[in-house]
Amino acid sequence: WERKGLDYGENNQITFAGENVQHLGEQLGTPLFLYSAERILNNIERVDQALKKTGLSSRVYYAVKANRFGPLLTCIKSSTSCGVDVCSPAEVRHAMSCGFEQADISYTATSVSNVDLDFLTKFPELKLNADGCSMIRRIGERTPGRSIGIRINPAMGTGYASNELLRYSGEKPTKFGIYISELEQAVQLADKYNLRIDRVHFHTGCGYLNDQLPVWEEILRECLTMIEKIPTVEAINIGGGLGVPLSVEDKHLDLAEWASVIKRVFENTSYEINVEPGTYIVKDAGVLVLEVNSVDIKAGKRFVGVNGGFNLMVEPVHYKLPCEPVPCTLPNAKEECFAADNLAPVTFAGNINEALDVLIEDLMAPPMEEG
Amino acid sequence: WERKGLDYGENNQITFAGENVQHLGEQLGTPLFLYSAERILNNIERVDQALKKTGLSSRVYYAVKANRFGPLLTCIKSSTSCGVDVCSPAEVRHAMSCGFEQADISYTATSVSNVDLDFLTKFPELKLNADGCSMIRRIGERTPGRSIGIRINPAMGTGYASNELLRYSGEKPTKFGIYISELEQAVQLADKYNLRIDRVHFHTGCGYLNDQLPVWEEILRECLTMIEKIPTVEAINIGGGLGVPLSVEDKHLDLAEWASVIKRVFENTSYEINVEPGTYIVKDAGVLVLEVNSVDIKAGKRFVGVNGGFNLMVEPVHYKLPCEPVPCTLPNAKEECFAADNLAPVTFAGNINEALDVLIEDLMAPPMEEG
Repeated sequence: WERKGLDYGENNQITFAGENVQHLGEQLGTPLFLYSAERILNNIERVDQALKKTGLSSRVYYAVKANRFGPLLTCIKSSTSCGVDVCSPAEVRHAMSCGFEQADISYTATSVSNVDLDFLTKFPELKLNADGCSMIRRIGERTPGRSIGIRINPAMGTGYASNELLRYSGEKPTKFGIYISELEQAVQLADKYNLRIDRVHFHTGCGYLNDQLPVWEEILRECLTMIEKIPTVEAINIGGGLGVPLSVEDKHLDLAEWASVIKRVFENTSYEINVEPGTYIVKDAGVLVLEVNSVDIKAGKRFVGVNGGFNLMVEPVHYKLPCEPVPCTLPNAKEECFAADNLAPVTFAGNINEALDVLIEDLMAPPMEEG
Repeated sequence: WERKGLDYGENNQITFAGENVQHLGEQLGTPLFLYSAERILNNIERVDQALKKTGLSSRVYYAVKANRFGPLLTCIKSSTSCGVDVCSPAEVRHAMSCGFEQADISYTATSVSNVDLDFLTKFPELKLNADGCSMIRRIGERTPGRSIGIRINPAMGTGYASNELLRYSGEKPTKFGIYISELEQAVQLADKYNLRIDRVHFHTGCGYLNDQLPVWEEILRECLTMIEKIPTVEAINIGGGLGVPLSVEDKHLDLAEWASVIKRVFENTSYEINVEPGTYIVKDAGVLVLEVNSVDIKAGKRFVGVNGGFNLMVEPVHYKLPCEPVPCTLPNAKEECFAADNLAPVTFAGNINEALDVLIEDLMAPPMEEG
């Protein structure tokens, strides 16, 4: 996980964005989330540049649900040309309060209520994506003649390590989007209300890395086949899901290769390509600083209890994603502390009084003390 | 699920605690949680009476995390002799604000921080249960000489339909409690700080029904063997976990049989028996009223999207427990609506923009319309 801007310094303490993490934890208290604006902007810039090299017109929409911290959103708005993707009226209001205009906002949700549609249809420039025929009809009843996007579902998906929990789409029908089997009906419904489908959105899973790119290319091609049935489409949002390494075996997603997939699939079209990375932008741009509350041997096994759990980080428990806690301060040089002889299995337990609340079991970790 | 106080009335609308659920939803808006104080108090009374018949001294502690709605807690305090079990300083403050005294409060948490212990040890009568040797030591450092409870772990567990996600204990060491292998060390640590272990707590899983009672009896016997090694113990909290039927195949827990297990195990002891039911008290005493936002066919499959999801009910998604949505209002007589010919598979999807957020797949349900 170490990289420029996040590593053990010469004092054997983690430095993040130029700050000493241990000191910040002691000064500000824990649990503490720290974010690096520089890293966030670098991550966006990297995606943006890779897209630009395809020669296609493009725009990045940051998926707000990845992290909706207000200052972070305002930083993105102030320093980039990103839009945002949101999925509730509260997120629309929040994005606007952070500086985004309605035309910067893509709205992609599911099971949207009439109350929410009454709110959303007040914004003619909001990029409102319909998740099914019901929503097309209900938008049409409220605001015939407006532009809409539709979310389609190619019945194919992929995600981190092919994790089923992160697939938004696959052989089994999911709640998201419009399938090929109902696409004609959707287009007819839009016609009936004079809704112009100028955008298509799809999203097929979270956290894909290089190994998943060939499947992802197939998905893009399948989606293109669906999209070409709708002559009014101008922009395609190919969703998010770009992964970051989560374990020592994982390699960084090759953005050049990723962009070349996009280029191969769309180079003979004139669509604007939108991308909606969320965790790719923020996941490696933040750290959660926790304190060791307790170290206990239970039935011979070492448990380190920390002062946070699935209330602060849902991924290990609810998505079964890897999580590797590391000490902010090492007693000795890193090489020594992480030498195989000094590692022992540790189970990191959250402080929620629920059996599920375990961050990782039997991680080979250096010794850690209470406090 | 129908019972006295919760059923379809003659008007084909659900009546709950004498109220028309459809009307309340329309008047108050949805999502809407409704609770029946009468049912809550009846559930407590039933457990209390079953315990009294054992002839053992006993007290019920309601587990606040099952539902911490303030009026509900105050209702329990005002109308019963229940204590409460809590697992954070915020819950201590909340319980006190709802009327409970410190001696009414049992505190059973995990990975408890020093900051939290600084707070908790201000209350000498709080029934503070230590979850491991680390916590015993840290309580001792702060308040030597006080009474404490310890949570033990019998390395055996059970829960609803033997669901692994609901087991707090089993062959694999969990983060909870003190195992037999560390019990002597725990007792010595308590001695060192002159802490009197006058209570023992254990909890082995959630939602057990009649089929799990034989295993539960074994667990109680195993725990008794551990407890008898600590001569100062006066009260035993046998935890919660009493289940309620979740599917049509489930039978109600036989409380007489449940109490007879307790009697068999403890009749030759003088311990006060504490029980800590949470969901058993409130689960069938509340309904969540949602609106149908959307009805869509997706890849040929029927999806009903509602205006709530895993934000409002964690059990179907995070614990894989059954969930059976039913219409507040039926178009015709119940027998007709639920006749096999009128049922079709429906997937109920929450409105959270996450693949996980599905309440139940392919439930055989009567037709439902938007709104």
